[in-house]
Order: sequence, then C-alpha cells, then structure tokens
Amino acid sequence: VPSSPGPDSSGPDSSGPDLTELRTAVGDDHVLTDPDLRAGSERDWTGRFSGPSIAIVRPATVEQVAQVLRWCHEHDVAVVPQGGNTGLVGGGVPGGLGEADGRPTIVLSLRRLDSIGPVDGAAGQVTVGAGVVLARLQEAARTAGWAFAVDLSARGSATVGGMVATNAGGLHVVRWGSMRAQVVGVEAVLASGEVIRHLGGLLKDNTGYDLTGLLVGSEGTLAVVTAARLRLVPPIGPTVTALVACTSVADAVALAAEARRSLPGVVAIEAVWPGTLGFTARAFDLVVPVDLEDGGVALLAEVDETAGTVERLAAWSGDRPVAVATDSRGRAGLWALRERIADAIALSGIPHKLDVTLPFDRIAPFAAAVVASLPGLDVHLFGHLGDGNLHVNVLGAPPHDETVDDCVLRLVVELGGSISAEHGIGRAKRAWLPLCRSPAELETFRAIKAALDPRSILNPGVLLD
Amino acid sequence: VPSSPGPDSSGPDSSGPDLTELRTAVGDDHVLTDPDLRAGSERDWTGRFSGPSIAIVRPATVEQVAQVLRWCHEHDVAVVPQGGNTGLVGGGVPGGLGEADGRPTIVLSLRRLDSIGPVDGAAGQVTVGAGVVLARLQEAARTAGWAFAVDLSARGSATVGGMVATNAGGLHVVRWGSMRAQVVGVEAVLASGEVIRHLGGLLKDNTGYDLTGLLVGSEGTLAVVTAARLRLVPPIGPTVTALVACTSVADAVALAAEARRSLPGVVAIEAVWPGTLGFTARAFDLVVPVDLEDGGVALLAEVDETAGTVERLAAWSGDRPVAVATDSRGRAGLWALRERIADAIALSGIPHKLDVTLPFDRIAPFAAAVVASLPGLDVHLFGHLGDGNLHVNVLGAPPHDETVDDCVLRLVVELGGSISAEHGIGRAKRAWLPLCRSPAELETFRAIKAALDPRSILNPGVLLD
Repeated sequence: VPSSPGPDSSGPDSSGPDLTELRTAVGDDHVLTDPDLRAGSERDWTGRFSGPSIAIVRPATVEQVAQVLRWCHEHDVAVVPQGGNTGLVGGGVPGGLGEADGRPTIVLSLRRLDSIGPVDGAAGQVTVGAGVVLARLQEAARTAGWAFAVDLSARGSATVGGMVATNAGGLHVVRWGSMRAQVVGVEAVLASGEVIRHLGGLLKDNTGYDLTGLLVGSEGTLAVVTAARLRLVPPIGPTVTALVACTSVADAVALAAEARRSLPGVVAIEAVWPGTLGFTARAFDLVVPVDLEDGGVALLAEVDETAGTVERLAAWSGDRPVAVATDSRGRAGLWALRERIADAIALSGIPHKLDVTLPFDRIAPFAAAVVASLPGLDVHLFGHLGDGNLHVNVLGAPPHDETVDDCVLRLVVELGGSISAEHGIGRAKRAWLPLCRSPAELETFRAIKAALDPRSILNPGVLLD
Repeated sequence: VPSSPGPDSSGPDSSGPDLTELRTAVGDDHVLTDPDLRAGSERDWTGRFSGPSIAIVRPATVEQVAQVLRWCHEHDVAVVPQGGNTGLVGGGVPGGLGEADGRPTIVLSLRRLDSIGPVDGAAGQVTVGAGVVLARLQEAARTAGWAFAVDLSARGSATVGGMVATNAGGLHVVRWGSMRAQVVGVEAVLASGEVIRHLGGLLKDNTGYDLTGLLVGSEGTLAVVTAARLRLVPPIGPTVTALVACTSVADAVALAAEARRSLPGVVAIEAVWPGTLGFTARAFDLVVPVDLEDGGVALLAEVDETAGTVERLAAWSGDRPVAVATDSRGRAGLWALRERIADAIALSGIPHKLDVTLPFDRIAPFAAAVVASLPGLDVHLFGHLGDGNLHVNVLGAPPHDETVDDCVLRLVVELGGSISAEHGIGRAKRAWLPLCRSPAELETFRAIKAALDPRSILNPGVLLD
C-alpha cells in the first residue's frame, strides 16, 4: 500500500505531495508548478478537454522517466503522458481520472527525449526518442535517403511517442499501414519504474509476447513509451494524381478495391462526396475538373510514376470522367479539393468531427443512412476510402450536443464498423466503447491493464473507466 | 478453487476426471482415450517431444471449444492446443507442464474447425477456421484471384491456427511480413471459456488494446485461436530469379539491403554459404552456374517480372558473377540449390537445427564466429538473408547433446540477435529465453499470462516456465 501523501509543509508546494524528490530527479527547471506554466499542458488544443495537475514534469532521459514513475507509484500519483498535445480525444491531458478522481496528477512531458539515432541503412531503420516531432523524423529520414511512412497534418508538433501511443494513421495507410506497422520495437517504462527495452530492430523475432504491438495504440495506459525503433521506407518519387468521377458510392468502393489490388504503387486513395466537393470548391474558388453526378463520389488516387502509369490510370478509370495530373501544379490543384475541406468547414462553423471505419460493403448504406439520420444538419463526407475510413463532419448542431455523435457512432456500430479509425478512444469516445467491444473483450482489456499497471496510475480514465 | 478431480468410477475411464461432460459436448467419437488413437497427437513429428494425455478432444465449433475450456477450467485440466502438429519447438504436444506437472492434460485438436468463408474481394480478406490447412487456404485464395502471403514447406499439414499461434514466417517475409502482418482479426476462446471475436476485418480500428496481435505468436498460452480474418495479396505473377556470387558476407548483406530498398517487386532474398552450396550441388548433381570464392556468399533473389526487370537485376548485381533465369526450368535449377539443402544435410546425418536472426551488421561476424566456435563439426549456413534470418545446421554432434545449441544461441545473444526467428520458443528454447529477454520483460510476460489464464491451464510449460 502506498503511503498516502497529505499536505506537506516541508516541500515547496502548499498542498499535495512533496515534490523535492522529483525536482532532484529531473532538475528544478523541469518540474513546473506555476499555474501559468502548467496551463498549456493541462488543456488540449481543441479546448474541449482539460483538467488540473500538480506539476508538469519534463524528464530528459529514460532513467529520469523511471525515477518519476517510481515516485508516482510510491506516492499514488496519477501520470498523464504527453507528447505534442495534438490528440483529438482528450487522452493526453489531465481530467480523465475515473476511479482515480481526486488523486493528484502530474503531466509527464516526453518532449525532451528528442534524440534521433543514426539511420541504419542495412536494416532501413532508425531509433528515435518519444519526444521527436514527426517533421524532424521525416527530415532525418530524407537526409539519409529514406522516408518515414506515416504522414499527417500535425507533423509540425505531433511526437513519435504520441503517434505510437495512438497508433496514428494518416494519408499513406493504404500503402504502408498505420503506425503499428512501422514500429519494430520500443523502449518503455512500466508503471513500477522498470524499463523494458527491445530496440534491436530484428525483422523476425519470436521470443515471447508482442509487447511492442500491445503498447502501440494503448494510449499511455499500460506503460510510458520513451523510444521507438522505426521502419523506414524508400522515398516516394514522382507521382501521378487522378481525380475520377464515380457514378455511385458502390462504384467508388469497387474502383478503390481494384486500385488496391492491381494498380502498382498506390500511395493514397481518398474520396469526397459531391456536396462537400462543391462546397470546398466554392469556398476557395477551386476548379472541379470533372462533372460529378448527384449520388456519385469523387475518387482521388495518387500513384508512383513509372513507365506506363498514366496509361494504367486510364485503363483503371475506364469510361468514367477523369482528370490526371503529372506536374506538381496540376497535382496540387486536385489535392486542394481534398486538403482544404477542413478549412472550408471551419469557415462555416464548429463541426462535430467523427472518424470511423466501415466494412467496404457497408460504406454506401452508411453514407445514405447518416444523411437521412441527421435531417436539417449539414453532413460532410470524405476520407481515406482505400482504408474504409470516413470522416463525418456535421455542421448545424450545438458543439457540445452529443446526440449527433451518438447517432453517427451507433449507426457505425450497427453496420459493423469502428467508432475510432485512427484517433483512439481517449476520454471522448469512452462512453461508446461498450457498443463495439464485448464484455469479454473489455474484461480482458481490464485484466491486461491491471497486470501492467496494478495501481492504475497511468492515464486513469483514458480508454477504460 | 477448482474441485480436485480424483479417480471416478462413474466415468468410462479408469482414472482421472470423468469425461462424460466432454463426450456430451463434442460427441463420443471425438474424445479419444484409446492409447493407439492418442499416440499420434502425443508426440511431435520430429520425435523429440512427447508426453501423456488423458484424451484427444476434437471439437467442431467455437461453442464446443468454449464448453471444453470451461470444463477444463473447472476441473483444473491442462489444455494443449494442437493444429497440424508440424511445430519445431515442442509447443503443440503434451509434456511441457512445468508447474502443472502431474495435472491431467488433454490435447485440444482444432482440425475440425476447417471452414473457409467467402473471399471478400473489396477488402481482399477471408475468414477461416483455425483447422484450415495452409495449402487449402492457398487454393481458396487462388481460386478467387488472390494469394495468401505466407508460404512454408509444411503447407500440406500446417494449420492456420498453429501458424497464428507461432507467428509463422517462411519464404515471403521480405515482401509481405510474417503471419502477424496477415492477421486482421481473430476469434478465440479464453481460458475461462469466454469467446472473444473480432473478425470484422477493418483496416483501421483503434478501439482498445490489440488483442489480435497479442495472440499472434503467443504459442497457445493465452487463449485458443478458433478462427482468423486474414489479409490476402495479389497473386504473384511471373518472376525472375538471379543467383549472384557475392565476394563476402558483408557484400551479400549490402546487396540484400540494396534490393530491399530499391529493387521493385522483390519476393524473396535467400543466401547460401559456399561450403553448403557445393555440398548440396554434389549431393544431387546440381549445376552451380557462378564461381563462388572462399569467403563469399551466394545470394538468390526472386523478383516480379515487369518491363525492365532483367536490366534492373543486371544493374543491381553490378560486376559480380550472376546467373539470371526467366523461364521456369532455369528458375527451378537455381532454387534447387537453396531448397535441397535440408535434404542434402539429412542424407549426411541428424543435424542440430538452429533458426536465428542477427542484426544485419552482425551477420558477417556471426558467420565467422559460429564456425570457429564449433571445431571439428560441419556447420551449414543458409537462410532468409533479406530478413536477417539464418538457419544454422550442425552435423557431427550427438543429436541430444545441447552444447551445440547452447554455443550457437549464446553467440546469437552476444551479437544482439534473436534465438528464435520464426519457430517460437515452445519447450525447446525455454531455457535460453532469459538470455535474450530481461527479468522485467519476463515478469511482464508472466503478468499477462496470469491475467488471461489465471489457473495456467493453457499450454503450461510452453514459452514460460
């Protein structure tokens, strides 16, 4: 049983546990207790999630992380691991305490663990600290003649540790998979302060349970990831972009499947529904180079340029209207129709943003049903159709009215989909998790959580209650 | 506390628990207690591992598996899940009981769970029962215009359930990854008899811990896999095979890395050391079409045939001697030099077979050291160089003398490698696991095992003690 820390006048803080040991461990400058200095880490960037902490603690090494966790374990202090604080489900800020409500909480910032090891050219791998920002990783890979497979719009602030913890997705999943497929090994600190380290980068290694894979996507609830060994991929060379006007949702799904199966070098397959396409084009005066019928869907495909790519794209798109761009200006023009959607929506109001996956054969029924279920609201549909991943943005409902979210997520579950494609559960979707995971699965999740973090000090209230 | 089953004269068996409930659950014909009928399942195919069971139980449905596990859980009977019984480390036969020594054990054969669902062409996936034999899966995929990515020589008897449990590898890992990369979801029965089912096949699904990935490679110790949702890949079309004479091990490793990085469509990258190459050629009167220097390595690459493949292979191999075959007869001639190695070795005696992975930059030092460490013995080196996976076969030592294994595995660990690339730990390598996994990792494995299987009825003594 941990000693229950009460007010302690010997420490520098007026209430809560004495932080002297923490200050000794990581340095005075890296235990932030001033409310002004804490504020940025206690609230997420959307402003939707926030909660109090007794300190922001910023260790610089894995040994310091271990010292901090040992201290928290001993003093029954909850720990919220935080990277770039770019999450969308409230999993990286205090306030999701659940059963731990009332316990003091620290935010454990991993940003100072920002070393990037040498690129291993033979293996095509690199070991990086949890605090490395995606853009820096991408730059380091590029400099060594490689690329990192995952790319997403928060690249300037999202960190590798957060991307591991949330199994981040992004634009290239159809080609290289999500974060889990890139993580060859991790170093992590358990709740007890013990360090586990498996960074050898061996491509075949059947020596025990896949702890690495288990930690990917565990949202900081099982251990604190401090470093990752990452797979690199050959750099993307020149590409060709095609925008195809499909006659129906089912037509677009079938064409996307055909691309995944037999178009060599597919990098991305995105889709935009016609209302959203026109809305975005009007907002920014963009040209839509193909005529899209009502009930149709615009499919955007990006493919490696090799001999015959343009001809293969023509054969693939068949007699559907298609615009193909091989130069960067033309490609940018087509991509703007996809990439500026969020901006166009933001100009019109505060949307409810849902990120879901549907089985491929349920995408068409889902698209029809979601519009019918939300009469009087503006429903925007677009997303990574190659992965079955749709973004549903709904305008016209009050921002904190969860009936929209509830309606969309229940529809997703009814159709066999996932209520979280790439953002995680965090605090935002915890209430809906029992809709898509059985009691036996949830019980197993809880048993694993209890096995790795018996006092539930790691991100309590995130993912599980 | 389970009721401790003693001899029970009311049952049909002379000792051990009364099997009447089991017989009712799966049918009289599928609870085999006759020693002659049990024998084939109580011993592995190598003859090295065996142990007694009270019955071979053959359920036909997941509900029957659940009934059997509930019964075993209640009666404290150990369960050894078994598929095609083609494992190499003793993980699929009784006798590895460890702490459970003396408990009655059943072999739970999953072979009757052999249904193959319809191929989902939009997703490129199929759901199959654990008992489906690999060759049948391959045939079903082929008939639907797809392929299954994992291939291995035991394809005629290895089952999907066993391949999931051991994270099977094989020839195409360099292209598509091992079994874990193919398994999109599983259905499994927990030790308690509860069923967890996650077979939707969604490509992006961040709703909780990755139980699927955790069960892959867990060697039947955490749950019994009853079905798997599997990714399919486009069928392999025509390929070109090249045999390159590299001047050194380091040269071969570098050339393999170059192929992985920039040769499009690589299907396999194998290597054979010169002594083994000559030995195999002499044994079967095969032609070696390139001159290989002492200290060199023969690299065999298989690549998709597209426009320019032969030219790209020539550019890739540079000024090294190379033989390129584009027709099936020529390709078979080159592949025979790799595929007949095991037969050639078997003609000479009973080898110690070690299956290990080395970091790419340690392969050359390992190859030199392993030969130097085993004076007077015939050391054959070959394997999946593209994955860093070497097979070390040693002739000349008594079959049960483990000093050879110990010497090779310790060398592997010293050089940062894995003592089990693709075969698993099972009972064969359990003693060496603490060499390559830290106490904290082993403690975490045990905590996970205890969380999912608190009475340790599932494959006790396999993987962990």
